[in-house]
Amino acid sequence: MSTLGEIGEHEAIRRLLPLLGNHDALVVAAGDDCAVCRMPGAETDQVFTTDPIIEGVHFAPGEIPRRVGHKAAGRVLSDIAAMGARPRWLLVNVVAPPTLEFGYLEKIYAGMTALLERFGALVIGGDLAKGPVLELHVFGVGELPSGAALLRSGARVGDSIFVTGPLGCSLEGKHLDFTPRVEEGILLRETGKVNALMDVSDGLATDLRHILSRSGVGANLESAAIPKNGTLEQALFDGEDFELLFTAPAEIEALWGDRLGFRPARIGAVTSEVGVLRLDGAALEGKAFEHFTD
Amino acid sequence: MSTLGEIGEHEAIRRLLPLLGNHDALVVAAGDDCAVCRMPGAETDQVFTTDPIIEGVHFAPGEIPRRVGHKAAGRVLSDIAAMGARPRWLLVNVVAPPTLEFGYLEKIYAGMTALLERFGALVIGGDLAKGPVLELHVFGVGELPSGAALLRSGARVGDSIFVTGPLGCSLEGKHLDFTPRVEEGILLRETGKVNALMDVSDGLATDLRHILSRSGVGANLESAAIPKNGTLEQALFDGEDFELLFTAPAEIEALWGDRLGFRPARIGAVTSEVGVLRLDGAALEGKAFEHFTD
Repeated sequence: MSTLGEIGEHEAIRRLLPLLGNHDALVVAAGDDCAVCRMPGAETDQVFTTDPIIEGVHFAPGEIPRRVGHKAAGRVLSDIAAMGARPRWLLVNVVAPPTLEFGYLEKIYAGMTALLERFGALVIGGDLAKGPVLELHVFGVGELPSGAALLRSGARVGDSIFVTGPLGCSLEGKHLDFTPRVEEGILLRETGKVNALMDVSDGLATDLRHILSRSGVGANLESAAIPKNGTLEQALFDGEDFELLFTAPAEIEALWGDRLGFRPARIGAVTSEVGVLRLDGAALEGKAFEHFTD
Repeated sequence: MSTLGEIGEHEAIRRLLPLLGNHDALVVAAGDDCAVCRMPGAETDQVFTTDPIIEGVHFAPGEIPRRVGHKAAGRVLSDIAAMGARPRWLLVNVVAPPTLEFGYLEKIYAGMTALLERFGALVIGGDLAKGPVLELHVFGVGELPSGAALLRSGARVGDSIFVTGPLGCSLEGKHLDFTPRVEEGILLRETGKVNALMDVSDGLATDLRHILSRSGVGANLESAAIPKNGTLEQALFDGEDFELLFTAPAEIEALWGDRLGFRPARIGAVTSEVGVLRLDGAALEGKAFEHFTD
């Protein structure tokens, strides 16, 4: 017998996955940023994701409510962006103590809808229930052309590794007012050149390891090339950056600027050392944020 | 300024709805059992819903974990059934304290998947986060032929009112091991005769009032005709029965038994008195379970 605190979030999820089922219509289920489902007869695939934010875990008690709403919706938009999909619909479960001011909740919704409007997405449902602390559980639905989803499992030996923006120190504020890289994710997918894509939520080192393990490859990062807010350590391990991390042949760099309107940074290369992550050639030790054990 | 405890769940939801948006692709958004969305080019519409279950609110601390999982998934399947749709995909957010035994969580998942397998539905994703009490937030996706969703707003004057099974006393156990009326909902939709459909979660009286207000009609219930577990009061107000409540022309009764394999009970009729609910001809007073104020 062991508790969640003893085994940690990632191990718990790994053990739960085999309890779930599988189906022909699933392109990918749990284990990527979103699940991807085929619809019979439709020209589009759908992606589904869900993210909780919990007072005292993902935001401080008394945080500005518009920022809480922004983060709750933004995390889900970032997951949808990480498939190259366009966000469409969101449903929101709110858990709150009876003492919560209704005006505070209204401002949370205002923060969510202000962000969603920028990307043409809508809250279309949800529920409201009583509980000890404030929580938002946001479920998101996105769409993309059939067969076009960008997965964590597509990285190829020789690919360059890129990020869309600087990493680290997100807890100083960016984790509450980041712009999810929705348009960037769609543009990257439309190039047809990206092999693997995800968003940086648990930290560059941890998230890149997800790409490596699912793709059966390794990577070498170049410390000087990583765009940083703060130190290298912070850029590698802080998390909640919500930038996009992707791999593609080096030739994709010819599209930066004019064609895409933004310029990702090349931070390393995909290698054939399965599961091995190196920094400037030296093996990088594991370190990751874990719910329950941290 | 007022708190959630002062204004109550239903009023809070009523005030939040105008903050959400609308879209051409939405057949119906928040305000029915599920949101219904059109997919361009698809032969099917999709329905989306979400339900939380929270320790100490929806189930007792220490409850048998398979029953907790059964209820969490069953509530969402019941919402999908209440549109006449077939459940396909579920995503589950779990919130739990670090002291929770992992084995307890595994048994919750076993309870969910055992129920889902009966209806060909699958858990395809979700998340796991730390919080003070155990919660499951289940998001469900269902499908049905384009344009065929059965809404709360379709009841017509002169319709008969039916339920699929006995009501009341659900807290004695049924709320944890009910069978969501998925097959019944699909069969009822396939008759082409049902005008309004929903599931009984807040109690017959409260839920029927939702149909009346959204359809712009009234109703008269016949107390002797209501199938009951326990007293009339319990059948009217207890809630969490998860039977289907629907209105249809009386002629639909010719289909019971042989054609449908089940026999709903006729419990009253739809009248032209907008918003007025009567029991044996006398006005029935309001009384409903509310999160926060109860």
